Amino acid sequence: MHSEFLLIKRLQKIFSNADSSILCGIGDDCAVYKPHPDKQELLTVDSFVEDVHFKRKWTHARQAGVKALAVNLSDIAAMGGKPRVALVSLTIPQDTDENWVCQFCRGVQSLGKKWGMSIVGGNISRAAQFSSHITVLGEALKNKIKYRKGARVGDVIYVSGPLGLPHLALYCLENNLRVPPHALLAFNSPAPCVKEGLFLGALPQVTSMIDLSDGLLGDLSHVLKASKVGAQIELSKIPVHKDFQADCVKAGLDWRQALLLGGEDYKLLFTVKALGNDLFQKKMNRHSHAFWPVGVVVNASKGLIVLDEEGNNYQGVHGSFDHFNTVHS
Amino acid sequence: MHSEFLLIKRLQKIFSNADSSILCGIGDDCAVYKPHPDKQELLTVDSFVEDVHFKRKWTHARQAGVKALAVNLSDIAAMGGKPRVALVSLTIPQDTDENWVCQFCRGVQSLGKKWGMSIVGGNISRAAQFSSHITVLGEALKNKIKYRKGARVGDVIYVSGPLGLPHLALYCLENNLRVPPHALLAFNSPAPCVKEGLFLGALPQVTSMIDLSDGLLGDLSHVLKASKVGAQIELSKIPVHKDFQADCVKAGLDWRQALLLGGEDYKLLFTVKALGNDLFQKKMNRHSHAFWPVGVVVNASKGLIVLDEEGNNYQGVHGSFDHFNTVHS
Repeated sequence: MHSEFLLIKRLQKIFSNADSSILCGIGDDCAVYKPHPDKQELLTVDSFVEDVHFKRKWTHARQAGVKALAVNLSDIAAMGGKPRVALVSLTIPQDTDENWVCQFCRGVQSLGKKWGMSIVGGNISRAAQFSSHITVLGEALKNKIKYRKGARVGDVIYVSGPLGLPHLALYCLENNLRVPPHALLAFNSPAPCVKEGLFLGALPQVTSMIDLSDGLLGDLSHVLKASKVGAQIELSKIPVHKDFQADCVKAGLDWRQALLLGGEDYKLLFTVKALGNDLFQKKMNRHSHAFWPVGVVVNASKGLIVLDEEGNNYQGVHGSFDHFNTVHS
Repeated sequence: MHSEFLLIKRLQKIFSNADSSILCGIGDDCAVYKPHPDKQELLTVDSFVEDVHFKRKWTHARQAGVKALAVNLSDIAAMGGKPRVALVSLTIPQDTDENWVCQFCRGVQSLGKKWGMSIVGGNISRAAQFSSHITVLGEALKNKIKYRKGARVGDVIYVSGPLGLPHLALYCLENNLRVPPHALLAFNSPAPCVKEGLFLGALPQVTSMIDLSDGLLGDLSHVLKASKVGAQIELSKIPVHKDFQADCVKAGLDWRQALLLGGEDYKLLFTVKALGNDLFQKKMNRHSHAFWPVGVVVNASKGLIVLDEEGNNYQGVHGSFDHFNTVHS
């Protein structure tokens, strides 16, 4: 690392943008942004810390940058919003290769650009560990924002894509096993469901939404708590890659646990009104979206029930990833 | 550190707010905020890393929290804006006392509350080092925003308060010397010039503004570069605490260098049109603000000239704090 000022100059070039809503980008005390006058703003921040959220030997710099932003876009998607601008705070150890940092930022910029976003500000500081802390501002019309709290008894629970692959990849990487290529791709290149989130945000049949970052049961339990309801999930209905179960067996990983507790899926979980479910499915098909019903919302007193392939109560451990206790019951 | 979820619960309580612009605070995938329809948004992020920006043995947890946010508010003030909401991303080593983290957050909240702000979101993650990364959204009317680029030849250069004390305190702390109490106070409890920034933002006579975080010469040179002008500063005009020079001599610190290169002052530096300077001074007095003229804007070809007490060119080293090279020429 030569000089903060020189690095900032390089990053400023990488993060160049041409958006008429940005009156002033990187280079002054603040960025100046003109928010949409009719929309609400969605605000989220996520950190991405080396050796906690990623390892350089597993993930290329550019992929790490994409992933660092993807985590945020998944949060914006989960509220039904469109991402607009981001600010990136980096901590950089003294001996870090500047080119690695620039590649990381090119990753951030490339995913941002894909969704029409601008990186408008940032900060770099020395530290013992590389980390990024990205704040994203999104926007949505007030009546198109989905919260965790809207699920009602009888609603159908959906997910927006196959689950479990990122956890399988992580398990293989941590245990020096061969990683199935499709699992490694899902782990290293998550595609936040921004398009799906905008589609779902616009549908009145959708009553609640969350993104799956900490594992299906963990994230579903946030919805249940906020909505004061319970849920019944059917293991056999959770969409998976065709080789998922076989790959898990090969790796010595319990596929049910991986599916229920594994994190980093970055798919959406949402609930749809029972009475509006037919209409929802028609709209879903008309717009060529694919979503999978995995269960139903039940009374809070029933808690969170998981049914195995035979329709019996699945008795596996419930919990979700916790940064301080790996499994938190 | 027991559990991420329990800590988040405690922090959620600390950061509670009651602002009708906040449709959803901490606890969903994103916060939902209604921006002012007529105003532009000011966006800034700053990090505050343990053992880089502060040390626990020098700065109480609550003071550290205040300081972490103050750095951001100083940026908002420098554009003439009013801070509105913030998001706080923390990295926390496993062995950190939760109470320390809560005290830190109480510091953030207390300064935010002072300016009518709300902490609407955040993130916590494990890491080797404690750090905070705070993003602040402020607001200002379009024609009241001040940039670095507006200074013109002939403009008078002002600062908003005495400089140098934080650097003196840091020097004493680093060298195990007795720290003058007023210097320690300036170091540990910076008061961002939000009120002053709003006052100055509203004045058409003010042509450019920046906050002093990296040292007078370093920050002034940003204004000069953005405005394509030079400057002449008079050392004898820079406001200082009455004991500053004597305290520097006692500590064995070159007071001129401390004044010109020392960082963390968090005062404002701004330029005022020569023709509007009388009117500016009248308004300043009428509103009981105190600002000190320290020099004038000159032609770019003259560069940055510092005159010593005898009116001769001061030949001290020019440079400013750089996180990767302590002094950057």
